[in-house]
Amino acid sequence: MFGQMMNTPLLISSLLVHAEKAHSRGEIVSRNPEGGIHRYTYADAARRARKLANALSTLGVQPQDRVATLAWNTHRHYELYYAVSGSGAILHTLNPRLFPEQIVYILNHAENSVLFVDAQFLPLIEKLKDQLPLLRHIVVMTPADKLPASSLPLISYEALLDAADDQYQWPEFDENTAATLCYTSGTTGHPKGVLYSHRSTVIHAMAAMAKDALGIGNASALLPVVPMFHVNAWGVPYAATAAGAKLVLPGAGMDGASLYELIDAESVDLLLGVPTVWQGLLQYCDKEDLMLEPVCDVVIGGSAAPISMIKAFHEKHDAFVIHAWGMTELSPIGTVNCRTQAMLEMEDDERFRLQAKQGRPVFGVDIRIVDDQGNAKPHDGVAFGRLQVKGPWIASGYYKQEGGKEWQDGWFDTGDVATIDEQGYMAIVDRAKDVIKSGGEWISSIDVENIAVGHPAVAECAVVGVPHPKWDERPLLLVVTRPDATLTKEEMLAFLDGKIAKWWMPDDVLFVDSLPHTPTGKLLKRQLRDEYQGVYQ
Amino acid sequence: MFGQMMNTPLLISSLLVHAEKAHSRGEIVSRNPEGGIHRYTYADAARRARKLANALSTLGVQPQDRVATLAWNTHRHYELYYAVSGSGAILHTLNPRLFPEQIVYILNHAENSVLFVDAQFLPLIEKLKDQLPLLRHIVVMTPADKLPASSLPLISYEALLDAADDQYQWPEFDENTAATLCYTSGTTGHPKGVLYSHRSTVIHAMAAMAKDALGIGNASALLPVVPMFHVNAWGVPYAATAAGAKLVLPGAGMDGASLYELIDAESVDLLLGVPTVWQGLLQYCDKEDLMLEPVCDVVIGGSAAPISMIKAFHEKHDAFVIHAWGMTELSPIGTVNCRTQAMLEMEDDERFRLQAKQGRPVFGVDIRIVDDQGNAKPHDGVAFGRLQVKGPWIASGYYKQEGGKEWQDGWFDTGDVATIDEQGYMAIVDRAKDVIKSGGEWISSIDVENIAVGHPAVAECAVVGVPHPKWDERPLLLVVTRPDATLTKEEMLAFLDGKIAKWWMPDDVLFVDSLPHTPTGKLLKRQLRDEYQGVYQ
Repeated sequence: MFGQMMNTPLLISSLLVHAEKAHSRGEIVSRNPEGGIHRYTYADAARRARKLANALSTLGVQPQDRVATLAWNTHRHYELYYAVSGSGAILHTLNPRLFPEQIVYILNHAENSVLFVDAQFLPLIEKLKDQLPLLRHIVVMTPADKLPASSLPLISYEALLDAADDQYQWPEFDENTAATLCYTSGTTGHPKGVLYSHRSTVIHAMAAMAKDALGIGNASALLPVVPMFHVNAWGVPYAATAAGAKLVLPGAGMDGASLYELIDAESVDLLLGVPTVWQGLLQYCDKEDLMLEPVCDVVIGGSAAPISMIKAFHEKHDAFVIHAWGMTELSPIGTVNCRTQAMLEMEDDERFRLQAKQGRPVFGVDIRIVDDQGNAKPHDGVAFGRLQVKGPWIASGYYKQEGGKEWQDGWFDTGDVATIDEQGYMAIVDRAKDVIKSGGEWISSIDVENIAVGHPAVAECAVVGVPHPKWDERPLLLVVTRPDATLTKEEMLAFLDGKIAKWWMPDDVLFVDSLPHTPTGKLLKRQLRDEYQGVYQ
Repeated sequence: MFGQMMNTPLLISSLLVHAEKAHSRGEIVSRNPEGGIHRYTYADAARRARKLANALSTLGVQPQDRVATLAWNTHRHYELYYAVSGSGAILHTLNPRLFPEQIVYILNHAENSVLFVDAQFLPLIEKLKDQLPLLRHIVVMTPADKLPASSLPLISYEALLDAADDQYQWPEFDENTAATLCYTSGTTGHPKGVLYSHRSTVIHAMAAMAKDALGIGNASALLPVVPMFHVNAWGVPYAATAAGAKLVLPGAGMDGASLYELIDAESVDLLLGVPTVWQGLLQYCDKEDLMLEPVCDVVIGGSAAPISMIKAFHEKHDAFVIHAWGMTELSPIGTVNCRTQAMLEMEDDERFRLQAKQGRPVFGVDIRIVDDQGNAKPHDGVAFGRLQVKGPWIASGYYKQEGGKEWQDGWFDTGDVATIDEQGYMAIVDRAKDVIKSGGEWISSIDVENIAVGHPAVAECAVVGVPHPKWDERPLLLVVTRPDATLTKEEMLAFLDGKIAKWWMPDDVLFVDSLPHTPTGKLLKRQLRDEYQGVYQ
C-alpha cells in the first residue's frame, strides 16, 4: 500500500521559484569578469533565469541537450544553473584548468552544441574550435558592447537576454531526469562524467541546509570560492537559494586581496573552498595585519585541511573550520565535521586534532570500510579499510560507460583508505593505490610523510610501497632536503623513531633532487613506484 | 534521460541506522509513565527497536498492517515509531482525548488488530473492547511486574522485548510505501485518516533539520511537548534522530512544574508545542519566580501564538518564539517564522507583530491564496484568500476515501483564509467557514474578536456572519461580559471605532450569558450562525 501523499517531483526549478516567493529580497552579489560588483535579488535572478530559459529555446536547445559552460562564479553562471536544468536540459560545467585535449574530449563526449563562456576563456576555444565539430553556438557571458573581436561568430549573453520574454512556465517532469553533468579527471585515462538528477540535487541541497551540514540559513552571507565548475560548487548555489541566503560570488578574483575585500564589504560569515585558496587568504591577512571579522565558519574540503590552518583560523580570526569530505561522485557531500557539544568543551589542541578528521556522514550518506575482499572492517578508529559509500546523491555509474569496477554490492568504492571510529568520525588515511601493504597489514604513506616533513632539513618527501621478497611491500622514504641543509638516513630514521609504529619505519631513505608532480601539484607516486620498484629485491 | 544516481529509497529505518552509526552516544531521556526518568542512547534505542521489530513478527504483524498506539511521549513510543514503520507495517497513533465513539470508529476503520497502550488508557479500552472485534493483541507499555489486573488478556511490552532477538535486518522497499497513519477530527463527520509515506516522512524530517525550519542539530536538546499521537509529534522524533539531538520526552507530565523540572535538569534549549501548554509553563514560572535559563527557542504551532506569549518568552525568559503553522494533512510543517537579519534589527514591538504571523513556507511547500472561484489573489499582505498548499509531504487524499473536495488542480485547500505578503509571510485570518462575506469582500471574524476582547468589560466574545438582505452577510458581535462589569452596545462599538475598517463594524451587538464550545474549547460558530440567522432579515 502506498502512502497518500502528493507526488510532487523534486525539481531544481522549485528552488528558485521558492526563493522568488519567500526570499524575494535576498541578495546575490558577484564580482563581474568585465569589472565591478553586480548586485541583485533572488526575484531579479528568477526573472532573468526565465528570460534565459526562453533564449535557450531560441538557440534550439532541446530537453536533455547538454549545454556547456566554461566560466567563473558569477551571477550569469548562477542563472545558467537554473535556466538550463530548470528547462529540462542538462547543465554541463567545464573546468578551464584541464588540459586543452581533455576539454576537447569532454565537449565531444558530451556532444555539446551550445557553449556559454567567460570572455577570458575565449582564446582557448578559438584555438580548439576546429576539433569541436558539434559546437553550433558560442555565447560570451558579457554585455554586447564588451563582446571581444574574434574569428568565431559570437553571441552576447546580455543581448540574448534583452531579446527574450520574461514569462516562462518551468516544466514539470520526472525527478530522476538528468539535470547536470560534471567530469572528474583522474591521473590515468579519459575524464569520466557524473550525471546528477534533479532528485539527487534537491535532496543534496536539503541535506546541505541542515544545521550540522553547511547550516545555510536566510541570515547567512556565504562566499563559495569553490568554483561553480567543480561539482556544482558543492551544491551551494542550490542550498543558498532554498534558504534565501546572501550569495557572494567571487568571479575570477580568488587571490587573498580580492577575497578579503569581498568578505569585508559583504559581511561574509561562511566561507567554502579548498585549502590552497585559504592559504592565500591567510597569508594576505598576515601580511596586511587584517582580521576576517565577520567570518564565523570556514568549510574546507577538496583536500585535507592541515591542523596549522584549522589553528590559524581559530587563533587569528576567531573562525571555526568545518572540515568536510566529498567527491564528484558524491554530489559532493559525504562527511562533515560539525561543531558538537563535546568539541566545545575540549582543550584547543584536542579539538584541533578532532577537527582534522574528515567528520561524520551527513544523514543520507551511509559509509563503511572494507578489506580487499569486501569484508566490512570494524568502526574502531584504528582499522584501515577501503572507504565505500551509498545514498541517494551518489553516482551509480559514469556517463556513457558500462559497468564500472567502482561499484560493488550497491556500494561505491571511493578509492580512499580510511578509518571510522565508534562515534562515526571518518579520517582519510591514504589513497587505496598508495597505501603500503606489508605482511597483510596496511601502512599509510601519508601519515609517515606528514611526520617526516616535520624535520627542519626536509623540503619535501614521499613514501611509497616497494615490492619486498618477504613482506610483499615495504615503505621507501624519498627526501628532498632544503638547499642549505644536510641530513643523513640515520638522522631521518631517528627523527621518525617513536613517532610511528616500529613496523611502519621505512626500510630505506633515499635523497633525491626533486619529486614528480601532476600539473595540479599532486605527487605522482605511480611514477615513483615504477622507478624504485627494484630497491628491495 | 535519467541521471545516473543510486536509487536509494528514503526509508524511516535509515534515520535510526544513521543515528546508531553517527550519533551512538546521543541521548533519549523520557519520563516513564510508571515513574522515574529513563535515559539511554540512540544505539540502545536502535537495539531495542530491532528487538521490537522481531516481536511484531511474533505477534503476527504483516507488512502494511496498521499497528495502533494509544500513548504519551515516551522512549517506548519512540521505539514503536521505528520498529513498526521500519519493518514495513504502518504506525497508527491514536489521540486518547477523542470521544470514545471516535476511538472505536478509528480503530475499526483502520482495522487494527494489535494495540500498544499506556496503562493509564487501559480502562478506556476495557470499556470499548466489545466494539472492537478485530483487536487480537493488547500490549501494555510497561514492565511485566507492573502489568495491571484486567478482564482482558494483556501482554507486557518489556516481556515481549525480553523474549526477542536483537538481530534484525531492516527491509528495503519502495519509498512511497505507507509508513504512518494519523486521523484528524473536524467538527462534523467522522475523523479522516492521513496516510504518510516513508518518502514524505523522510523529506519532511530533512526539511525540519534546516537551520531556518526547526534547526535541529546534534548539540540541540529538545523537548517536544506536542504529543506523539498528534501528527507524529510534528516529525520531531524523526528529525532529532537524523541529527543525533538530545531528545527529551515528557511522558504524561505536561503541567508547568513537570516541564520546568525536565527543562532545567536536561538543559533543554528547544521547546515545541501548542500555546495552551506554554501558558501553563509561563504561569508556573511566574508563580515560582523561575527563569527558563537554557531555553533559546520555542516553536509554537497548533493554534496561533498570541503576542503576549511571544513577548513573555522574550522578556522574562530571553527565549525566541518561532511561530509555525501546519496541519495533519501537511505532515505537519507548512510555514515557519524563523529569525531573519531584518528581524534582529527591529524594535521589540515591531518584531513581536511580525512574529505573530505564521511565517514563510519552508522549502518544499508551495502556498497560494485564491478566491471562491479558485483565482489566485495577490501576495500583497492585504488581500484575503483561501489558503492552498502543495508539496511532497502534503496529503493527496484521505485513507479509504474517494475523491475529496479539498483537492483542486493539484492544490490542497486548507480551509483557512490567509494573507501572504511580498516577502512570503503568511498570516491566518480566519477559518474559511467563519469568514464573513459582505458585499463581495471578506471580513475576518477573528480580527474583530481579538480587538473586542481587549475591552476590560468583555469576558469572551464571538463574531459571526449573519445573512443580510443587501450585503449577503454582515457581522454580528456576541458578548459575554465579566460578572461585575456593565457594557452597552454603543460603548462596545465606540471601542471598536478607529481600530477596524468602517465596513467591518458589526451591525449589531448582542449580550449573552455564555457561548457554545467544542470539547477541546473551540467556539462552535456554526451553532451561533444557526441560532442568529434571522437577526438582520
